[in-house]
Amino acid sequence: VSTDPAAIDAFVARILDGSVRAGARAMRLVDDREPIAGAILDRLYRHTGRARVIGITGNPGSGKSTLTDRLVAHYRRQGKRVGVVAVDPSSPFTGGAILGDRIRMNQHATDPGVFIRSLATRGNLGGLSRSTNDVVAILDAMGFDVILLETVGVGQDEVEIVKLAHTSVVVLVPGLGDDIQAIKAGILEIADVFAINKADRDGADRTIRDIRNLQMLADVAASGWTPPIVRTVATTDEGVAELVDAIAAHEAHAQDADSDAPERLRRREAHILESLIRDRLVERMAEALGDAPTRRALLERLVARETTPYAEAQRVLDGLLRG
Amino acid sequence: VSTDPAAIDAFVARILDGSVRAGARAMRLVDDREPIAGAILDRLYRHTGRARVIGITGNPGSGKSTLTDRLVAHYRRQGKRVGVVAVDPSSPFTGGAILGDRIRMNQHATDPGVFIRSLATRGNLGGLSRSTNDVVAILDAMGFDVILLETVGVGQDEVEIVKLAHTSVVVLVPGLGDDIQAIKAGILEIADVFAINKADRDGADRTIRDIRNLQMLADVAASGWTPPIVRTVATTDEGVAELVDAIAAHEAHAQDADSDAPERLRRREAHILESLIRDRLVERMAEALGDAPTRRALLERLVARETTPYAEAQRVLDGLLRG
Repeated sequence: VSTDPAAIDAFVARILDGSVRAGARAMRLVDDREPIAGAILDRLYRHTGRARVIGITGNPGSGKSTLTDRLVAHYRRQGKRVGVVAVDPSSPFTGGAILGDRIRMNQHATDPGVFIRSLATRGNLGGLSRSTNDVVAILDAMGFDVILLETVGVGQDEVEIVKLAHTSVVVLVPGLGDDIQAIKAGILEIADVFAINKADRDGADRTIRDIRNLQMLADVAASGWTPPIVRTVATTDEGVAELVDAIAAHEAHAQDADSDAPERLRRREAHILESLIRDRLVERMAEALGDAPTRRALLERLVARETTPYAEAQRVLDGLLRG
Repeated sequence: VSTDPAAIDAFVARILDGSVRAGARAMRLVDDREPIAGAILDRLYRHTGRARVIGITGNPGSGKSTLTDRLVAHYRRQGKRVGVVAVDPSSPFTGGAILGDRIRMNQHATDPGVFIRSLATRGNLGGLSRSTNDVVAILDAMGFDVILLETVGVGQDEVEIVKLAHTSVVVLVPGLGDDIQAIKAGILEIADVFAINKADRDGADRTIRDIRNLQMLADVAASGWTPPIVRTVATTDEGVAELVDAIAAHEAHAQDADSDAPERLRRREAHILESLIRDRLVERMAEALGDAPTRRALLERLVARETTPYAEAQRVLDGLLRG
């Protein structure tokens, strides 16, 4: 893509027209951190905000990918175009992610109404969060009605990524882990809907009871929305229609006076804005620490306690920041 | 603590002398982000680097806290003074953490050779990582020989925190999760020692076989250190002596020519330095976004698509950064 404004406009118009080729190209520009990506995203952004972003979060082994696959099929039957963004922040060192289960999505490979994109970590949380935001914005601008944002695990990074979702589904399986500890407070707070997948297994009742107890303790009803708990068996499609209904109910609740939807829309923008700023600040920090030999010499002085990280941090910050 | 240099020196001297009161006070100053904390830490830092920091990471329900407790007892019998820092980043919204299992540590409550400190998230990863670094530096300066750094879960945040450890123990339990997916690539890469806790349960052999297979695939032997796999039953102390031996063997390996210990020491300093810089940059970002009404007005303009996060991020960065 040329930096000529007219060429950018033409490229942006193709994306807005739903061109899969142009959209995929824009995503590669984002991946490669091409400077022009910012200009493209800035123009696309004003056309976003129409897609419904649904977060699907759960531990490995929860059957989350199969469930996502089923949701795609259900939304397709409703005539909706569906984007899937699968994010795996679990392997920070290799730069790669185990996303083999994406193969199961192959049944949608020839359907132009479905666009699937996998994102692995790029070594820092900010970067991954920013890439996810950009890819979701592109899919939104391309006219996808529903975007399923699938994240592996339930740590801080997933909580961060799920801030982009309008509705957040947490997938649990019966008997995973020993006890209530596995249902951590963080999960309770990000879930708008719970899916108990593999619900034909022993222990489903107990898992549901545990969640209900936690919900009572946290007095979630006071917020106007008690996250429903849906039993699913993704492999047989059991309960998936009910899950779609529960997600739709949460969307409908956004119109209610006591809904936190307006606040969530603001939080979503704050998340996108802050990811961009943070990502650039971290890049600038890396630049300020110098090339590899400079950096190594500094680290060796720190190991030898010839200087301290407190003094060096101040020096770097003084160089980076205004006044 | 007064900002008078002589008063700071006197306070620092008390910490270096091992005063539990002064150390706890310094930790509270760190918690409260008191400006004076930086000056204190800067002076303490030159006296650090003597403690052996051992990371203990595992999912909730892995019995990690009981195991930590047993390790404390073993190190105490060796005459070592032991600090424990328990970090739970799992509840980002509440600001609190479920650390009830710390109660189990009560048997050490009256032992002056043991110092236990729990840290919950403060809303951002950088902040938690920085607090952890500061608390570990204080314990190190106080003269604790061994610092057990216990983190909940195995996500990006824990991987980040574990960078502070000289030896990293990953605790797994047999049959948690369905399959190999539960042993994620990230775990393999942070583990110097594996503890298979609750090893009297079915499935321990399979878990060990799975790890061995992953280790072969990753060719870990090529790095000069193949992380040993120790079976433990923390509740009965079974295997804990062997775990202590495996940790000691990893420490001894640091002297070998093919050890990555020097590189790890540099990475440790890089982690501490970057946490400090990143944390301050994020603080400055928050300041730049203005007070609550200013920030809210901006977010509403973003929701209305009157502006874009790309344009606003650039504006904020231009205001923050030099040239």
